Amino acid sequence: MSLRSRLALGCALPLSLALALACSASAQTAKPMLGFTPDSAQRERALEGVYDKQLDGSEMRAWLEQLSSEPNHVGAPHNKANAEFMLAKFKEWGWDARIETFYVLYPTPISESLDLLGPKPFTAALHEGPVEGDRTSGKTQNALPPYVAYQGDGDVTGDLVYVNYGMPEDYKALERLGVSVKGKIVIARYGAGWRGLKPELAQEHGAIGCLIYSDPADDGYATDDVWPKGGQRPPQGVQRGSVQRMMLYSGDPLTPGVGATKDANRLTRETAQTILKIPALPISYADAQPLLEALGGQMAPRNFRGALPITYHVGGADAARVHLAVKSDWSLKPIYDVIATLKGKDFPDQWVVRGNHHDGWVFGATDPLSGNVVLMEEAKAIGQLAKTGWRPKRTLVYASWDAEEPGLIGSTEWAEAHAEELQKKALAYVNSDSNERGFFGAEGSHSLQTLVNQVASETPDPETGVSVADRLKGKFMLDAASPTAREDVKLAAAATANGGEFPLPPLGSGSDYTGFLQHLGVASLNVGFGGEGEMGGVYHSIYDSYDHFLRYGDPTFDYEVALAKSAGRIMLRLADGEAPPMRFTPVSSAVAQYLKEVKGLVDKDRTGDEKLAHLLAAKAYELSNDPLHPLAAPKPEAPVPALDFSALDVATSRLDAAAKAFDAAYATNLGRLDRKQQASLETLLSGMEQGLTSAEGLPGRPWFHHMLYAPGLLTGYGAKTMPAVREAIESRRWAEAQTYIVVTAKTLDTYAERLERGASSLSAK
Amino acid sequence: MSLRSRLALGCALPLSLALALACSASAQTAKPMLGFTPDSAQRERALEGVYDKQLDGSEMRAWLEQLSSEPNHVGAPHNKANAEFMLAKFKEWGWDARIETFYVLYPTPISESLDLLGPKPFTAALHEGPVEGDRTSGKTQNALPPYVAYQGDGDVTGDLVYVNYGMPEDYKALERLGVSVKGKIVIARYGAGWRGLKPELAQEHGAIGCLIYSDPADDGYATDDVWPKGGQRPPQGVQRGSVQRMMLYSGDPLTPGVGATKDANRLTRETAQTILKIPALPISYADAQPLLEALGGQMAPRNFRGALPITYHVGGADAARVHLAVKSDWSLKPIYDVIATLKGKDFPDQWVVRGNHHDGWVFGATDPLSGNVVLMEEAKAIGQLAKTGWRPKRTLVYASWDAEEPGLIGSTEWAEAHAEELQKKALAYVNSDSNERGFFGAEGSHSLQTLVNQVASETPDPETGVSVADRLKGKFMLDAASPTAREDVKLAAAATANGGEFPLPPLGSGSDYTGFLQHLGVASLNVGFGGEGEMGGVYHSIYDSYDHFLRYGDPTFDYEVALAKSAGRIMLRLADGEAPPMRFTPVSSAVAQYLKEVKGLVDKDRTGDEKLAHLLAAKAYELSNDPLHPLAAPKPEAPVPALDFSALDVATSRLDAAAKAFDAAYATNLGRLDRKQQASLETLLSGMEQGLTSAEGLPGRPWFHHMLYAPGLLTGYGAKTMPAVREAIESRRWAEAQTYIVVTAKTLDTYAERLERGASSLSAK
Repeated sequence: MSLRSRLALGCALPLSLALALACSASAQTAKPMLGFTPDSAQRERALEGVYDKQLDGSEMRAWLEQLSSEPNHVGAPHNKANAEFMLAKFKEWGWDARIETFYVLYPTPISESLDLLGPKPFTAALHEGPVEGDRTSGKTQNALPPYVAYQGDGDVTGDLVYVNYGMPEDYKALERLGVSVKGKIVIARYGAGWRGLKPELAQEHGAIGCLIYSDPADDGYATDDVWPKGGQRPPQGVQRGSVQRMMLYSGDPLTPGVGATKDANRLTRETAQTILKIPALPISYADAQPLLEALGGQMAPRNFRGALPITYHVGGADAARVHLAVKSDWSLKPIYDVIATLKGKDFPDQWVVRGNHHDGWVFGATDPLSGNVVLMEEAKAIGQLAKTGWRPKRTLVYASWDAEEPGLIGSTEWAEAHAEELQKKALAYVNSDSNERGFFGAEGSHSLQTLVNQVASETPDPETGVSVADRLKGKFMLDAASPTAREDVKLAAAATANGGEFPLPPLGSGSDYTGFLQHLGVASLNVGFGGEGEMGGVYHSIYDSYDHFLRYGDPTFDYEVALAKSAGRIMLRLADGEAPPMRFTPVSSAVAQYLKEVKGLVDKDRTGDEKLAHLLAAKAYELSNDPLHPLAAPKPEAPVPALDFSALDVATSRLDAAAKAFDAAYATNLGRLDRKQQASLETLLSGMEQGLTSAEGLPGRPWFHHMLYAPGLLTGYGAKTMPAVREAIESRRWAEAQTYIVVTAKTLDTYAERLERGASSLSAK
Repeated sequence: MSLRSRLALGCALPLSLALALACSASAQTAKPMLGFTPDSAQRERALEGVYDKQLDGSEMRAWLEQLSSEPNHVGAPHNKANAEFMLAKFKEWGWDARIETFYVLYPTPISESLDLLGPKPFTAALHEGPVEGDRTSGKTQNALPPYVAYQGDGDVTGDLVYVNYGMPEDYKALERLGVSVKGKIVIARYGAGWRGLKPELAQEHGAIGCLIYSDPADDGYATDDVWPKGGQRPPQGVQRGSVQRMMLYSGDPLTPGVGATKDANRLTRETAQTILKIPALPISYADAQPLLEALGGQMAPRNFRGALPITYHVGGADAARVHLAVKSDWSLKPIYDVIATLKGKDFPDQWVVRGNHHDGWVFGATDPLSGNVVLMEEAKAIGQLAKTGWRPKRTLVYASWDAEEPGLIGSTEWAEAHAEELQKKALAYVNSDSNERGFFGAEGSHSLQTLVNQVASETPDPETGVSVADRLKGKFMLDAASPTAREDVKLAAAATANGGEFPLPPLGSGSDYTGFLQHLGVASLNVGFGGEGEMGGVYHSIYDSYDHFLRYGDPTFDYEVALAKSAGRIMLRLADGEAPPMRFTPVSSAVAQYLKEVKGLVDKDRTGDEKLAHLLAAKAYELSNDPLHPLAAPKPEAPVPALDFSALDVATSRLDAAAKAFDAAYATNLGRLDRKQQASLETLLSGMEQGLTSAEGLPGRPWFHHMLYAPGLLTGYGAKTMPAVREAIESRRWAEAQTYIVVTAKTLDTYAERLERGASSLSAK
């Protein structure tokens, strides 16, 4: 008799002690479980109890040490060895596993140099070096030097200008100071927007080169003691990363939309839209300080000033000339995705996909391996359940991606290569990336919000003993009480104040869900713990090491276990539900909120314009100006026309009604559907998120199909909701905004129509 | 024929070219002039035109260079020489001048030392030293070393704790971190509250010593380039200052309430309430850095972190032991007030007093001499008017005070010594202290608000050409548009939006008006320009030099001239008005605003208590707590009882009506009052401000009599309005608040009653 069959009979039968205990514990819980009837919920909880017993922090610790023992960037021998190690493990745990190989453009540095030519010449070290207590920090033989992937290469000399975070508002501030970056080399600090935007915007403004450094105000001694005394970024630490223009498309720059198989049609490097034209280089704050110190010109505005012990100037009016040269090897490299499958017994063509990448920038202990070993632990535990005969209703796919760091490449190429199949079969994609001590976090498709909340309410927090959901709600409450609380935190606190669900923040980009969610329209989640670790301090540097994780990530591995519990439950419930555990009123609530926000943006523009016009008319800028530190008045904007939101108003109302009707029908009829109803429900729900996509995609970036969530063109990783409408408004492209109000409304209509159809199909007797 | 007689005949007569031009210019102006009829206003403007012609920046420049050429602290030979130089000058200009000498307790350092004993021993330099381009910076022979006057002396050794600004909320934050300062030596940074509160609060919390340093975040390279490259505080610069507990009483600590004449009864040093018991020492950020760097314990909370290139810790759990020793000479020293009088022809017993101090901490070029030379220039120009035969209606008293720096001593002792006469005769006191490029600023008694606004609207701004009032209004408008605008700025912007008067901020303490305004109840102003200079960077250091002022204070001396114009006009109009130029609806508006604010504080307390109770009940603090960085929840407060504000409501309404009635009667009847009416109006107005005082004074500090304006017990310099009520509320002493609601209301009633009396007397036919 298989474990699964025993479970089917409930808890009365003499099972293993572990299972018995789990059953008796779960019997006390009357919490609802979406997708399950009370009976099946009880069985599921028993299963989850057994699952939990398999989880072992010390095992994850050993894997982490091994996987992070050598550099494991794309193309590194140890990265391939890690893929092969995992392949063997998955097989050992009873999974049907394989490695899928793609061939992608992946530049690696041949040479880099950075010199300040005057007034006090200085040559940047561009080197991180070993530190005491970090056993791998001296292992540089197979490591790549600090660099940013997909910058443009070049050998340039020019005056240096400090552009703060290098975001659009920073260029506006520089313009008011009379400073242009045309023909100059900019130095930007990390933060405020995604790294890749910095060289891209610099290039757009006419700069010939771009340096990016980590200011200690954001990432260094001002945030806490630096490694190895503390966990934060030491003076010589550098944040590597990709500057590929992933807001256009992610994955291999040469094969947008298709898998980068050996024989795929390829663009050339010159025609690939996502590769920059100017050279760029990331540097440490130790290297940045002499450069910034050399700058003259006006003092930098208050919000430009970091925590280096210098007076920040913007430059542009001095003798601080810089020579920057970067040269890369632009050959194709093979990448190795490890894919493991456990076939579902009832709906084998319904896939629930779980992923985490395995490539790092150097040793990648926290990013990504802290997440990857959790994924492995989940697979092991599920494998052990399977060895007792249990099988999920739906097929589980566990994937360890390669080449996430340079541009979400492993996952994107796999998603593109299997696009058709995935759009038919993939019910959901659950991602993680790194994991640390702290608070539970989940972002993603709102149809999965209830599932996530239920799982979080049953996952105990290692430090407080309450559920991770309750801990998170306590934190929202406290954070929202701050006078400087962010709007989303206040919304979350308000939503959870009376026991409500915590809302899922939307997904932008920055990890492997992008190909699934935004290109294919597969409902997706990104999960992990954080907020108490200090991963930020070593992010994408050589110091993201096993030793650092042991001290500042999750020393007890309790949060590694907690992530395995919560992500594992999400996977098990998605795979095992009587029906897929999806609910749609959270979607309609989110849509209503987003609509409110985009309308608010228009009002804010109008109010802002009026305010500015008033100040300009009163000459308030001229009168306040210090002639020895001149600052020009901002330029007035063209007036905001009337926008007609009625299409979205109507669509949002329809969606609200449809979601309520569907959720009610689902709740009433679950457990008493006939075979045909069940099959049609499976099909409906696995394709549901695609109802939010549009074949034409977003304006200017057709690869992005999702009309509700996208990475911002001007935020990079940060999400923009109702992106076509929101970004048009934010950039004051009013005609485009009006067009996409209608397009987005049409998409919502499609989605609502599917829900309406689903509701009647569920209720049909 | 005297100039004055010519003026009396109007502009038609053939006067000097200067006067003719002034007349023709003033003829275009139909601006109202409070205290003058249209005819007398025209004559006054002509006089002011002649006055303006006497003003000469190069003369002030020469005086400034001479006065600041040697150290001029209390007791320094050059300070006495400066007094004697001014005495001679006043006499030369036709003033009746004398030096009044007082004998005051003024400690000067004998020895100071500061050592970090471990882990890395370090001995603080406690020395500023010469810098290139600052010609006096090497003249240390007669200079005092950096110190704070009226600290307690001592030789102590203890662990170091960093207390941020050392303000009450900082101690609350430390308590939540589990850190006590009992038996320890604290290091506090300058800012957020008056310097003297730092050792005082440290002492109250059980500390045995106190260091105060200037963090570069507030005062150093983070604010702009440092001297001599720029104007800001260099690493070795130290802010000296007084730590006398001036919130209890100002002046000589041994003679509260009476003049420190040779034979005055004196307290002992031990019984003087305003002298601290623990040693304290101000240090540079160069000296502070090794001390702060040595601290362990928890990381300092975000708002504790400055701009030194270190990770800020609070200490209290480490081996950072410090040895601090300070020893002073506590002898009495003579001080020299220079007093010059120009007798009024109509009301010789109505005095209009102008003051600025002449003692500095070292060379004192900006503070105080940039203001003192303006006062001299005014006296010279007025003397020149007088030499033509003109005489003011009322008596002008020009005073250059000694010993302001250690505790407003020269002005306070003079005010106390002449208390009875001043309370009878002093119509107003107009103070300045330092002056720089920038925006016009005036604070003080609201009965003088209209006068100040009118003068500011007729003083041209050197940089923009508009009036200094219009420039200030433009700045309020721009500043108020900022999302982080302060409440007072928003109120000022709103008040001036439609051509209204800019409100005068209330006076706290920190300069020589305190004895006049808050002890004697003489209507007072403090005036000066600022906001574009960089005085802050050398404040109370050896680098407050002539060279610094020339580069970063007012290089062209145009703002020195502008201050002489505006302060001179205020003096001339006060002295020359048909009636004293006072108006009372600005007083009643201010009172209404203050009442609204103190009521708001109670509401805010209630809301805050509820919010806290809610967070505590939900365990939001515990749930958000990181066990590796523990932070205790704040302690709940006892509930806020109901406060009965009706007495203040009634008094405020009465005051509003009385002020309106008085102002209307004044406007209608000016120029047609009979002799008796005029005399009674003079008496009423010169004693008017005393109507806002109470003989019993403020709770716990009876020397402070003013019930509307006071320096805050917990702000030091910063003003508290309706201080008895406001501070009781802020400290949650509810019974005291209720008592002083009634006391304050009674004071306002007295004031209103005087206005009512005045209104009927003015209207009597």
